[in-house]
Amino acid sequence: MTQAEILMSQALKLAENGLLSSAPNPAIGCVIVKDGRVIGEGFTQPPGGNHAEIQALNAAVAHGHDVRGATVYVTLEPCSHFGRTPPCADALVRAGVAKVVAAMQDPNPLVAGQGLARLQAAGIETESGVLAEQARELNIGFFSRMQRGKPWVRLKVAASLDGKTALRNGQSQWITSQAARDDGHMWRARAGAILTGIGTVKEDDPQLTVRAIQLARQPLRVIVDSKLSISPDAKILSGGGTLIFTAIVDAEKQALLQDRGTEVVVLPNAQGKVDLPQVMLELGKRQINELHVEAGAKLNASLIREACVDELLVYLAPAILGDGRGMFELPALESLQDKFSLKFHQVMQVGEDLRILARF
Amino acid sequence: MTQAEILMSQALKLAENGLLSSAPNPAIGCVIVKDGRVIGEGFTQPPGGNHAEIQALNAAVAHGHDVRGATVYVTLEPCSHFGRTPPCADALVRAGVAKVVAAMQDPNPLVAGQGLARLQAAGIETESGVLAEQARELNIGFFSRMQRGKPWVRLKVAASLDGKTALRNGQSQWITSQAARDDGHMWRARAGAILTGIGTVKEDDPQLTVRAIQLARQPLRVIVDSKLSISPDAKILSGGGTLIFTAIVDAEKQALLQDRGTEVVVLPNAQGKVDLPQVMLELGKRQINELHVEAGAKLNASLIREACVDELLVYLAPAILGDGRGMFELPALESLQDKFSLKFHQVMQVGEDLRILARF
Repeated sequence: MTQAEILMSQALKLAENGLLSSAPNPAIGCVIVKDGRVIGEGFTQPPGGNHAEIQALNAAVAHGHDVRGATVYVTLEPCSHFGRTPPCADALVRAGVAKVVAAMQDPNPLVAGQGLARLQAAGIETESGVLAEQARELNIGFFSRMQRGKPWVRLKVAASLDGKTALRNGQSQWITSQAARDDGHMWRARAGAILTGIGTVKEDDPQLTVRAIQLARQPLRVIVDSKLSISPDAKILSGGGTLIFTAIVDAEKQALLQDRGTEVVVLPNAQGKVDLPQVMLELGKRQINELHVEAGAKLNASLIREACVDELLVYLAPAILGDGRGMFELPALESLQDKFSLKFHQVMQVGEDLRILARF
Repeated sequence: MTQAEILMSQALKLAENGLLSSAPNPAIGCVIVKDGRVIGEGFTQPPGGNHAEIQALNAAVAHGHDVRGATVYVTLEPCSHFGRTPPCADALVRAGVAKVVAAMQDPNPLVAGQGLARLQAAGIETESGVLAEQARELNIGFFSRMQRGKPWVRLKVAASLDGKTALRNGQSQWITSQAARDDGHMWRARAGAILTGIGTVKEDDPQLTVRAIQLARQPLRVIVDSKLSISPDAKILSGGGTLIFTAIVDAEKQALLQDRGTEVVVLPNAQGKVDLPQVMLELGKRQINELHVEAGAKLNASLIREACVDELLVYLAPAILGDGRGMFELPALESLQDKFSLKFHQVMQVGEDLRILARF
C-alpha cells in the first residue's frame, strides 16, 4: 500500500460511521494530513449536518491546527453545489489547503468533476482514483441512484443448505442463527427502504422495522400489493412511513390507508400487476439508495425475472430440511442456458451460518 | 508455531503426496532432523512399498547422512506390527535415532501406543500430540475405519445457489464449472470407493472413474441396486472392479454379472431395500477408508436418513434455476426441530463456484 492508500483507507473506515445515518447522502470519510501527521478527521453527518470535509476541517481547527498547506484525503470528490449545505469545495479553498486527493469523482451529475475543477481553479493540486473500487462499494446504492436513477436492490433470503426457506407447513422460525438474523438487521438498517409483498404481510404480519440496532430513522417500508388487499390492521402499517404500490384504483381503501399514514401509489403493468421496474424508478426519485427486499418466493421470483435485483444476500444454515419451500417460485427452465447467472461477491461465516453475497 | 510444529507441518505436507496412492494405508509423512538440519524426508508409498519412516531413513542414508542421534518427526505413531512390511518402530531402533515425535497415536488396535512403547523400551525419547488435529484430518477415512469399522462417507452434490441439482427435465450438464468438476475428481481420486444408486446408473449411465487425474488404481465402484435391475451393459460395469449391493437373490443375474467381473452382495433390510448401514460396515471390512457418494436425490436422502453420511461436499454454482430437482428427496418435516443439523467445516471458492464441506 502506498502512503496515499493507507490514508484513503483510513478515510474509508471513517466513512463507514455514516453508513446508517447519511442517506440519502453518501457516507463519506475525510482525513487531513500536514507534515506527515493526521490533523483532522471527519465523516458525513445526518442530512442537513456537515459533510465529511467540513467535519475534518472543523476538527483540525478545534485542535488548534493550521490547515493551510495541508493535504485532504476524501472518499468522494468534494461537492461544488448548494444542496442542504454549501459546497465543500469552496470551504476547502477558503481553508487554504494545498492538495485534495479524492478516491473517485462524484457520479452526481450536479458535481461530476466540477468539484475538483473548482479546486484546481483555486490553485489546489488534485488527484483522484485512490481506492476507487472500495469507495464505490461503500456507497453502491448512492452510485446506483445517481447513475441509473434507481436504488441498488439487495434481496435477502435465509435458507437451509438444501435451499429451503421454510417447511412445507410454512414453519420458518428459525432456520438461521441469532447471529445471522442480527446481521440481517444491519443490512436492513443500511437500506433507505425495505420492500416486501402482500403474501408475506398476510402470512407473517411482520413489522419490518430495524430493532437489533438503535437508529435515528427507520427505513421506509414498501409493500407490493397488486389488489390493494392489505388489512388496515397489518403491523407493518403501524407508525406510518409505509408506502404501498398497487395495480388497482380503490379510492375508499386508499383514503382509509392514507388515514393511517400510508401512501398508496398506483403503478400497474400490462398484466394488471404492479410494474416492478417502475417501482424501482419511483423509489429512486424518492432518494432511496439501497433497497432491501425481504419477500416470499413469488415476489422474489418476479423481481428476478423482471431484472430488478442487483444482489442476493443469502444466509445458508448448516441444516437440511428436505421437502419444503424454495427460495424463488420460478417456472421450470427448458435449458440450462436460460439460468439466471450471478457472481459470488463475498462469502463469510456469520455465527454458525454462511453469508453469501452474489451479484447478477 | 514452535520448531516442532514447523517440522511436523512439513511432514504433513509430505504426507499429502500419498493421499491418492497409500490406501488402504494412511498417508503419512516423515522428516528427520539432526543438528538443526533436515537430513531425510519421506512419505508412504503404495501398499507393499515403504512406509514414510523407512523412506526418510533411506533418503538420509542415500545422501550420506548419519541418522544416529537424529530426531524423527512423523505424522502418525510408527507401526509395531508386521503387515505387508516389517515394523517401522524396529527400523528406527536399529537406526539409532535419539527421539521420535509423532503427531498422534495410531488408532489401529494393532498398534495403539505399542509403537511408541517399543521405541521407549529401546531408550528412544518419544513425544506425541503435535498438530494432531491436522494429522487426523489428513487421514480421516483411515481413522474412521480403525475406530468405527466403516469408511468416512463424503456425499457430493453439485447444485445451483437455490439448491437445484438439475432442471425439471433432468438436464444437469453442467451446473457447475469445469474447475469445480475437476476438483470433484480429486475427491473421487482420494476415495477408496465411489458409491452410486441404480437410479443414477439408469439415468446417466456414468463410468464413475477418475479421469481428470492420472491414477495407479481406480477406486472401487459400488452400486446400490435393491432389485438387481442393472443392465449388464451399463458403462459402470466395464473394466470390472465393481461391487453391487442388492436386496434380492437372483442367481442367474448374479452369475451374469460375475462373468463381467462384478461382485454382487445381498444385504437386505426389513423393508426389502439394501441395508445401508450394513453396506458401510461391509466396505469397512474391505478396507475402504473414504467412500465418495455421487448419487441421486433418493439414495442421498436414504443415506442421510439412515445416518450413513459423515460429510457433505457441496458445490454451489452462482446461478438460479427455479423449479427443478432438489438435493435430497426427503419427506416434509413437521417441525424445524427435526431438521438434519450440520456444521460448516470449510468453505472456499473453486473457479466461479463455492465448495462447501459440512459435517453431520
